[in-house]
Amino acid sequence: MGGASFPLTVVNQIEPAIGPLIAQVDSRIRVVNQARDVSEPWKTEGADILLTGPSTAWKNAPATPPATWRPARWVQIASAGTDGFPQWFLEAQPVSTGRGNAAVPIAEYVLLAMLAHARRFEIFRVSSPQEWSQQGSAVKYDAPLPTLSGQTLGLAGYGAIGREVARLARSFGMEVRVWRRSPWLDGEEAREGVQAVRDLGTLFGEANHLVLALPLTDETNRIVDRDVLSRSRPGLHLVNVARGALIDDDALLESLDRGLLAAATLDVTSPEPPPAGHRFYTHPGIRLTPHVSWSGPSVAAHLRERITRNIENFLHGRPLESLLDPRRGY
Amino acid sequence: MGGASFPLTVVNQIEPAIGPLIAQVDSRIRVVNQARDVSEPWKTEGADILLTGPSTAWKNAPATPPATWRPARWVQIASAGTDGFPQWFLEAQPVSTGRGNAAVPIAEYVLLAMLAHARRFEIFRVSSPQEWSQQGSAVKYDAPLPTLSGQTLGLAGYGAIGREVARLARSFGMEVRVWRRSPWLDGEEAREGVQAVRDLGTLFGEANHLVLALPLTDETNRIVDRDVLSRSRPGLHLVNVARGALIDDDALLESLDRGLLAAATLDVTSPEPPPAGHRFYTHPGIRLTPHVSWSGPSVAAHLRERITRNIENFLHGRPLESLLDPRRGY
Ligand SMILES: NC(=O)c1ccc[n+]([C@@H]2O[C@H](COP(=O)([O-])OP(=O)(O)OC[C@H]3O[C@@H](n4cnc5c(N)ncnc54)[C@H](OP(=O)(O)O)[C@@H]3O)[C@@H](O)[C@H]2O)c1
Ligand SMILES: NC(=O)c1ccc[n+]([C@@H]2O[C@H](COP(=O)([O-])OP(=O)(O)OC[C@H]3O[C@@H](n4cnc5c(N)ncnc54)[C@H](OP(=O)(O)O)[C@@H]3O)[C@@H](O)[C@H]2O)c1
Repeated sequence: MGGASFPLTVVNQIEPAIGPLIAQVDSRIRVVNQARDVSEPWKTEGADILLTGPSTAWKNAPATPPATWRPARWVQIASAGTDGFPQWFLEAQPVSTGRGNAAVPIAEYVLLAMLAHARRFEIFRVSSPQEWSQQGSAVKYDAPLPTLSGQTLGLAGYGAIGREVARLARSFGMEVRVWRRSPWLDGEEAREGVQAVRDLGTLFGEANHLVLALPLTDETNRIVDRDVLSRSRPGLHLVNVARGALIDDDALLESLDRGLLAAATLDVTSPEPPPAGHRFYTHPGIRLTPHVSWSGPSVAAHLRERITRNIENFLHGRPLESLLDPRRGY
Repeated sequence: MGGASFPLTVVNQIEPAIGPLIAQVDSRIRVVNQARDVSEPWKTEGADILLTGPSTAWKNAPATPPATWRPARWVQIASAGTDGFPQWFLEAQPVSTGRGNAAVPIAEYVLLAMLAHARRFEIFRVSSPQEWSQQGSAVKYDAPLPTLSGQTLGLAGYGAIGREVARLARSFGMEVRVWRRSPWLDGEEAREGVQAVRDLGTLFGEANHLVLALPLTDETNRIVDRDVLSRSRPGLHLVNVARGALIDDDALLESLDRGLLAAATLDVTSPEPPPAGHRFYTHPGIRLTPHVSWSGPSVAAHLRERITRNIENFLHGRPLESLLDPRRGY
């Protein structure tokens, strides 16, 4: 990629507040603001740089590039996942992502989900002295509450999100097992305080809590299928903060019904929202949240910083942060 | 205290499983098992060592020592708190406690309570596509969800529980402020990664989450009163895992009603359970659990280990672990 050459036009579909920040980097840059929900976000009128985010329009984009479309010199997208964009678009120019911007809030969501499951947070709804005594005695004399300390976390994916989840889980005294795509370097597992496992089924068999932190790619689509679910360790709690389409929903519901796994916390589904009447809304073993795990007070600021740093990188011909590898798909 | 001299009788009111463990330490020790809920637990028939735990009988014990009662040479109690025992009993012989045995499960409970409050766990109850979209948009466009990262934890008490809570809170990137009884040593705050504050009102004024981890003593009884509560930082979330009588309940309810603090998570109350119809059962700002935060898979084992180690300490005339200082009251 080239480095600076003016005039340089940035089309900004993320948020108007980014315009002035770019002007601060270099006042010669021309910024064209477009609405976040523009109906044809690929119509960028020959922009050099496109700042865009996931939208219904991108999801329903034409299967092949529109005739008048021209690639930009670089595209920055707001999200970590790129699965909501058409392949022709992702392959046409360098694309950098929002990877890691929301890793902290998502990791907090995951720890909350695991603690709530282990410590039976939703069971304690004491509304009378009788309930207080019954629920208290059950814990005191029948079965102690589990703790995360001593339990095993299975991490499918060990990127920005997976690493932050692993760090927190280790402070709680959890054992961390990881399944990822790349081979492990010598001594890497020990240095990171995790143990690698060779396949997803093994991870399901060893984990008390299994967290999906994988991108949605051709390789990972519906990877959590009947076969993988059938290998679940008894009592398994599945947490999905990545993408709904990683899971075969029918197989998940069937496994919950058969007691192969105990519970699932789903921040993402496919489609979103699930259609009216979908069992995800009512199944007692499922906790459903409306794709909010990413939300946090610093996420927008991290994205703005990523964008201004990458604008600087672009101007100086330096490598861009968080570049997508379109062949791997993430 | 003396060291070994036989015959030596241990009266065990904690759990029968402890008997054989003591026999393993020294087979010359005679163990007399009594029921956990014995009606006059002070009737120990001249035992050298008494193993006992909190009970209704101890709570309603006579105000002065019964005529036939004789102190033991040492008492080990199962709980961390000693407030459920009469003063004449606690002062009569060395008393060691269960301090720290449940620090890990309690700290997990506290982190769960803080995460659930910050990340609005109980709000997400999506039962239709409409709710999914409404709740999701509120977070996306109106107000991001808070994270513990960047928030301030106020710890009243920095003993076994407080330290474990502080350790976890720091891994989440919280700032930790502490109020305790003893003066701080030079450099101690920096070493521990906490900041000392000079009084409880200041702690309430600076904290997003305020955790009570204090023993109940003459000094701390109803210490969380109207005045302290009135200094709460806006949005404060109060967590009580120590003892109900630390709080003036009427003042707490009034402060919640007036919006001086946002929420309270109470694992302990005074009395337990709260009487039928008490507002703690129904107030929307209160989450009430039936004194279960201590529960964990290793707590009973920790207590057994504490007891056998202290039996060995006693036999060898070595200092006992977790001795109560009856003048301080903890
Ligand atoms: N719920 C939300 O609001 C939200 C927010 C942000 C992101 N997300 C989703 O979460 C995903 C992960 O985010 P991230 O930032 O952690 O991504 P990342 O840093 O790119 O990490 C991706 C991880 O997945 C592993 N992986 C990829 N393909 C794999 C395969 N075929 N088999 C096994 N492992 C594979 C990678 O392995 P290597 O380490 O070997 O490369 C890497 O460890 C995103 O792609 C996005 O879809 C959701
Ligand atoms: N919910 C449950 O199931 C459960 C389970 C276990 C314990 N508890 C309760 O939790 C309490 C704390 O347990 P722990 O094991 O952490 O106790 P601990 O190790 O004895 O620590 C007590 C802490 O409170 C501080 N403190 C005592 N009196 C004070 C005063 N007047 N002003 C300010 N600070 C004072 C002490 O200060 P210094 O550091 O200066 O000594 C110390 O930091 C127990 O006493 C018990 O009542 C409840």
